[in-house]
Amino acid sequence: MEVRWNEVVFSLAKDVERAVMPLFGKPKAGEVVGTNVSGDVTDYVDRVSEDIVLERLRPLGINVVSEEIGFIDNGSDYTAVVDPIDGSYNFTAGIPIFAFSFALFKGEKPVYGALYEFSTGNYYEAVPGKGAYMNGEPIRVQPKPPEKAALSFYTRGRGIGIIRRVKRVRVLGAIAVELAYLAKGALQGVVDVRNYVRPTDIAAGTMIAREAGAIVVDDTGKDLKIRLSAEEKMNLVAASDQRTLDIILEEVGE
Amino acid sequence: MEVRWNEVVFSLAKDVERAVMPLFGKPKAGEVVGTNVSGDVTDYVDRVSEDIVLERLRPLGINVVSEEIGFIDNGSDYTAVVDPIDGSYNFTAGIPIFAFSFALFKGEKPVYGALYEFSTGNYYEAVPGKGAYMNGEPIRVQPKPPEKAALSFYTRGRGIGIIRRVKRVRVLGAIAVELAYLAKGALQGVVDVRNYVRPTDIAAGTMIAREAGAIVVDDTGKDLKIRLSAEEKMNLVAASDQRTLDIILEEVGE
Repeated sequence: MEVRWNEVVFSLAKDVERAVMPLFGKPKAGEVVGTNVSGDVTDYVDRVSEDIVLERLRPLGINVVSEEIGFIDNGSDYTAVVDPIDGSYNFTAGIPIFAFSFALFKGEKPVYGALYEFSTGNYYEAVPGKGAYMNGEPIRVQPKPPEKAALSFYTRGRGIGIIRRVKRVRVLGAIAVELAYLAKGALQGVVDVRNYVRPTDIAAGTMIAREAGAIVVDDTGKDLKIRLSAEEKMNLVAASDQRTLDIILEEVGE
Repeated sequence: MEVRWNEVVFSLAKDVERAVMPLFGKPKAGEVVGTNVSGDVTDYVDRVSEDIVLERLRPLGINVVSEEIGFIDNGSDYTAVVDPIDGSYNFTAGIPIFAFSFALFKGEKPVYGALYEFSTGNYYEAVPGKGAYMNGEPIRVQPKPPEKAALSFYTRGRGIGIIRRVKRVRVLGAIAVELAYLAKGALQGVVDVRNYVRPTDIAAGTMIAREAGAIVVDDTGKDLKIRLSAEEKMNLVAASDQRTLDIILEEVGE
């Protein structure tokens, strides 16, 4: 298949941006318009943005996994795992942390990942085996001693001791974006132990973080496997380095 | 004193924006250039932005309280409590949540408060007794049932039960901005029980949240008093309504 994925996906992200940005911070964006494949509510902005993505991907004939509609099997070798707006609550509330997330797999093998952060205009990419990029420039994780590290940390109580072992905690509300921040060195870890995140939320972010040098595992320390599913829920532990990872797993395991 | 504070402060915020935005997400912004009045390090971006503020306020002859330099007593009835960049870590890391914060007092009485959120261009104002505004339009808190509420919550462990009693937790890393989000209904509470926040961080945000209908107290439930100090550290509990406030204080008190 001779598709220039970087061009196709960037142009798709810009189309989504044009359609949704007039709704940023507007109650209309959060109106409930249905129920998705996991039984959660679908907001207006999720529906609008997913419709654009599906319409634009249709001519390519690939399979699509998307949060609202689930798995669309077109019998292709390629599957796109998409979250048109990761961070919908932030979007509707007017909090400028949210992104378009797109991950492409051939079979189960990752081949391209991209995140477009609307509010900064930053475009993050991963080409597995060839590195991670922001706006075309290579990015790398920035390990720091734990007492200076900043972590994004989602919990319902589990592993709470982590907050006393790092300098800063963030909960920004868009895990795809937080994985990109890990990749560019703005955070040293991203942790969600609520059994909450789905492949659509983290497929692209995981590719980008890994290509930038991060270690991405589950809550038992095993390599995190991204399945081509809109429904599976997972725990995620991503860190810039082994020392930070060990601290997180130690606290989470207690 | 015949000063149009809204015009002076908005133009000051735009001057700071022009000076600092080229440094957004750049390591240069975070270079340590000295030590402030509280003994914390001063970053390059803090120094640059404070210099602009002090230079622009000098002709007005008012007193100034600012994070890096402390209290400048010009013998005026008026005191400006300023944080030129609330959320410096975010700024340096390239996380788009930070704001210019300015609060004016006559004696100890609040007379004007403003926040300028650079990444969205939103300008929040409070005129005590006359309401809170975003870009000139009135804003109000949006109370929600706790099971649907979103809270910003900073802790080193105290009151951790809160996270199981609300729907969403955020830790965005710029408390002034989070108070503005409370004021416009994007969050239902802002809590910091680390004995960490200072008047410079929260003076403007507190005015704006209160004028939008929020209740702002300390961790014992007493009305939070903002002193004209760059050094005092406080606990902050702000909520859109009494029911949310009661839940927070119950958990924090245990």
